[in-house]
Amino acid sequence: MKLYTYPGAPNPRRVHIYLVEKRIEIPFVRVDIIKRENRTPEFLERVNAMGGLPVLELDDGSHIAESIAICRYLEALHPEPPLFGQSAKEQGVIEMWLRRIELNLMVPVGLVWIHGSPLTKAVMKEQIPVVADQNRRVVARYFEFLDAQLASRVFIAGDSFSMADIVALCTLDFAANLNALRHAPEQQHLARWYERVSSRPSAALG
Amino acid sequence: MKLYTYPGAPNPRRVHIYLVEKRIEIPFVRVDIIKRENRTPEFLERVNAMGGLPVLELDDGSHIAESIAICRYLEALHPEPPLFGQSAKEQGVIEMWLRRIELNLMVPVGLVWIHGSPLTKAVMKEQIPVVADQNRRVVARYFEFLDAQLASRVFIAGDSFSMADIVALCTLDFAANLNALRHAPEQQHLARWYERVSSRPSAALG
Repeated sequence: MKLYTYPGAPNPRRVHIYLVEKRIEIPFVRVDIIKRENRTPEFLERVNAMGGLPVLELDDGSHIAESIAICRYLEALHPEPPLFGQSAKEQGVIEMWLRRIELNLMVPVGLVWIHGSPLTKAVMKEQIPVVADQNRRVVARYFEFLDAQLASRVFIAGDSFSMADIVALCTLDFAANLNALRHAPEQQHLARWYERVSSRPSAALG
Repeated sequence: MKLYTYPGAPNPRRVHIYLVEKRIEIPFVRVDIIKRENRTPEFLERVNAMGGLPVLELDDGSHIAESIAICRYLEALHPEPPLFGQSAKEQGVIEMWLRRIELNLMVPVGLVWIHGSPLTKAVMKEQIPVVADQNRRVVARYFEFLDAQLASRVFIAGDSFSMADIVALCTLDFAANLNALRHAPEQQHLARWYERVSSRPSAALG
């Protein structure tokens, strides 16, 4: 097995944190996104037709792309400690939060990124600043929602650390890099959660 | 257990098709989206703070929202026939396709819907028609990609029908309702797949 990755980018980081939490070691192949090495005809043909990172190459030569899919594959091979839940209910609740964080937080953060960042201006044919503004407000509202949710529990999906915390942490850190997309200090429950998950060794090593 | 749902809407439909495929029966509670019954203070407080449908109420009174999370919960209780894969590799590949269909197809279809449909004009404070146009092109390109992918296999995630086919079918049918967002007849592999999954009894009953 080997992992095509670009450490530091938000989606690869999810897998790196997961690997540290699970104490799994996999050799890496660094693919430079800035040099667009993930868009070469060979990469698209052989590794991932969508061009995204990270991608896991299995020993049979096939590939699994998408960060959460890679982690779910590894979870089936290494169930302990469980990061996708054990009981049916835990599995369902963690999946609910994975989808909420992705669709209701990462998607709007991504729209701020592609429509509002000078860094993406070159690759986007048509940047629409009002879309970035609209989605900054969506993100701010979602931080309010998460803060209220976290008033009654320790982690995103319950009282145990899970994949949902990894995805949320990577999303908040990515958002914070996009000027002003940061949770407010008075959102004390969200701030307390953020401190707690950021201080795990995996957050620094992943 | 009971399912809060609005049969006919794209996300609830995924769960209804899943239930037919799995031969699981759950009592429904119909919540009228058009009358905004899913946005009443009581629904937000008691059932789903995000206001979305469908939502599964468990026997302990707790709730699982998000269509795929509901199906994953039911899959843990009723593993046969498997719709999320059995081996680690099947599980990983199906998850990869679920995420691709959601993020690369359903998200742009949703942006066409909220920025381009007269039906959503009333609830969107600021509809941006150019976002709808941009995403119509994204969807058209994704149909090309899916067509090429389906040249070499029967179903979205391999040679067995899976949750990825259910999500893709519901997305294509929802897109087709948004004028012109339809795959082209010359996309023969995608068209063949569409005919095959549409002709399953679950597509009509779900």
